[in-house]
Amino acid sequence: MIGCDCVVCRSEDPRDKRTRSSILVQSPECRWVVDTGPDFRAQCLREGISHLDAVLYTHGHTDHVMGFDDLRRFCEFHKEGLPIHASPSTMEDLRRVFAFAFSGENRVPGYVIPKPTLIEGPFFLEETRIDPLPVPHGRTMVTGFLFSRSGEKCLAYLSDCNAVPEPVLEQIAGVRVLIIDALRHRPHPTHLHIAAALDVAEKTDPGAVWFTHMCHDISHAMVEKELPPGVRLAYDGLRIEA
Amino acid sequence: MIGCDCVVCRSEDPRDKRTRSSILVQSPECRWVVDTGPDFRAQCLREGISHLDAVLYTHGHTDHVMGFDDLRRFCEFHKEGLPIHASPSTMEDLRRVFAFAFSGENRVPGYVIPKPTLIEGPFFLEETRIDPLPVPHGRTMVTGFLFSRSGEKCLAYLSDCNAVPEPVLEQIAGVRVLIIDALRHRPHPTHLHIAAALDVAEKTDPGAVWFTHMCHDISHAMVEKELPPGVRLAYDGLRIEA
Repeated sequence: MIGCDCVVCRSEDPRDKRTRSSILVQSPECRWVVDTGPDFRAQCLREGISHLDAVLYTHGHTDHVMGFDDLRRFCEFHKEGLPIHASPSTMEDLRRVFAFAFSGENRVPGYVIPKPTLIEGPFFLEETRIDPLPVPHGRTMVTGFLFSRSGEKCLAYLSDCNAVPEPVLEQIAGVRVLIIDALRHRPHPTHLHIAAALDVAEKTDPGAVWFTHMCHDISHAMVEKELPPGVRLAYDGLRIEA
Repeated sequence: MIGCDCVVCRSEDPRDKRTRSSILVQSPECRWVVDTGPDFRAQCLREGISHLDAVLYTHGHTDHVMGFDDLRRFCEFHKEGLPIHASPSTMEDLRRVFAFAFSGENRVPGYVIPKPTLIEGPFFLEETRIDPLPVPHGRTMVTGFLFSRSGEKCLAYLSDCNAVPEPVLEQIAGVRVLIIDALRHRPHPTHLHIAAALDVAEKTDPGAVWFTHMCHDISHAMVEKELPPGVRLAYDGLRIEA
């Protein structure tokens, strides 16, 4: 955290250097990212990402959308616009914040050209089925995602939520990999804390659990060794098969 | 640039790794930044910045404002809000994009609390006089800044412009340090290119000139040695006395 000299902020462990939460999903047919926070350009450069087929958004908070304009680089392969999947309220946030991109007026080569696609139920990206998972994040509802292939639940992504409602618990039960919000040890009004995230894991019995969106209360090395088997802390650059 | 494997993008020279343009100005009494692009958090962490007295904005384009929410860390020392200086049109952009911060509704501790201050003429930050410099940046007018102390022109900052109008040339004539847009060798519709920036330097005769906002056409080591004496390329982390 800016201006902080706690042990985690001063840590030499690269896993304690966290940029804003996001994932890239590579299916056999195509690839997409979930969210484009302010670090999106730095993350793409770090991981050598040069092509995207779509972008999904969980919600419109600054730490999840402010890198949107850096999608411009991926638009040249999408003459009709880069498919942007977001709930109606998140799309409204994107349209307000990046008005220049959605107005249709700036069609200069090299500019970002979105193709807005509202999430209003399950949809497919090639052979991957994507179920939106509505979860509370403070006073707002945001979108988690369940990615399935051939009826198999491969990956659930719940980066920002302070609870997981019963219907979502049922939807993600038995998923191979669960990536879930676990901000810190103490409860927080808009994020799951570690005990609450473990409770979700216990109720849904995933093959593997990765915690994400941790704050600087969490020392990677110290906290990970206290977690139950099968539960780990994600870090920047982590690659997972699901 | 994302997805680019040109010699500059693959360069091992750290001066070729450029984050978005911004400066921090430290006066004897206080300090402020000009612009908070998407890299603002990373830049603050890199430079160990833990305190700010104000923020100035040149304009509302994404590469100059999208790190605004990371100002939250600097707000705890400003109970009345962190002074944000911007032209009326730039402030309008900030209010639209970061509506949650300006609405007055989110006064949760730890959130960003701006104190909007419109730039409508010269103003002071303690003993430093700041003259706004209106310059064209494509179809819009943006704000450069001249910083003076005791009648001495210390620093002029023109990060984004495709021309410098005559009245601004007169205002900055003889400034000790000029930091000026120089995107690349070829002309560009919204930015100065190197020859045009050199022309401004010749007309205003500054003590030193630093080029900023370069794109990946510019290899630091190769281009700097072709520049006239007193003209250099800025780089991330550069410190200058003015």
